[in-house]
Amino acid sequence: MRILGIDPGIAIVGFAFIDKLGSRLVPVQYGCIQTEAHTEPSLRLKEVYDATLQLIDKYKPEAVAIEKLYFNRNVTTAFTVGQARGVLMLAAAQNGLPVAEYTPLQVKQAVVGYGNAEKKQVQEMVKMLLKLSQVPKPDDVADALAVAICHSHSYVLMQKMNEVYKR
Amino acid sequence: MRILGIDPGIAIVGFAFIDKLGSRLVPVQYGCIQTEAHTEPSLRLKEVYDATLQLIDKYKPEAVAIEKLYFNRNVTTAFTVGQARGVLMLAAAQNGLPVAEYTPLQVKQAVVGYGNAEKKQVQEMVKMLLKLSQVPKPDDVADALAVAICHSHSYVLMQKMNEVYKR
Repeated sequence: MRILGIDPGIAIVGFAFIDKLGSRLVPVQYGCIQTEAHTEPSLRLKEVYDATLQLIDKYKPEAVAIEKLYFNRNVTTAFTVGQARGVLMLAAAQNGLPVAEYTPLQVKQAVVGYGNAEKKQVQEMVKMLLKLSQVPKPDDVADALAVAICHSHSYVLMQKMNEVYKR
Repeated sequence: MRILGIDPGIAIVGFAFIDKLGSRLVPVQYGCIQTEAHTEPSLRLKEVYDATLQLIDKYKPEAVAIEKLYFNRNVTTAFTVGQARGVLMLAAAQNGLPVAEYTPLQVKQAVVGYGNAEKKQVQEMVKMLLKLSQVPKPDDVADALAVAICHSHSYVLMQKMNEVYKR
């Protein structure tokens, strides 16, 4: 099961492909898509979209997990991040990929074990769970890895629940 | 000069194509794209995107004008509307169309003459300016026509300014 985790944004989009092999989590590729501030908003969205399509085409994920609302941010930020999420979700839908959305609380809970965990704790757990030599930078990349890990847990849970229902 | 005016949303997207012929404004086509609430968000975005590409292909606008921020709405709404704006702006960028953004204040100012105008006043002015037999329904369609009219005014103003600078 290959998962694409995404931390959406317009200046920087974190992405992370991880494989769930049995109980093991293996990082495949991760990094970020960056766009220039002086470029027209619609062209920046096109850059994000084009880069995402290329990544999906290259790494062929089976599911997409994306960070949901940031309730503490302001409305202007929400619009801008929302626009980026729109084209990211579109790229997934066009490739027939299911899109799961997780709040930062859910991601922290899945990765660290409790929802009030600090960013640094999440990053250290990401590093440990994926056996990385260091915490991935910038934060957006670590966040993308975290949401992918979160989905790998939910996915396992969903499978187990399906097995129970089948009995 | 053919303008596509858009009132973005996920349940309903208002669209309006108008021609600016000299000082005349001629409505070409207007209506709305609707998506079902029970459909997956990413698939709804794909529906909005696909329908918009078809409309652009059919009516071949030269510019796109879209409603900007609603400061009075909440963050969740901003995210949802932002996502729809994202795929709409992408569709424009992919067709090489410039995207102009206008706040509701700017639209009211352009259509009615003052920023505090009520919705009903804007709608009546839209009807009058475009010589329609009745106010277009739903509100999203009237809003799309209004933002297109707003852009036609700005466009004329920009042209005049360019002429002044050329002297």
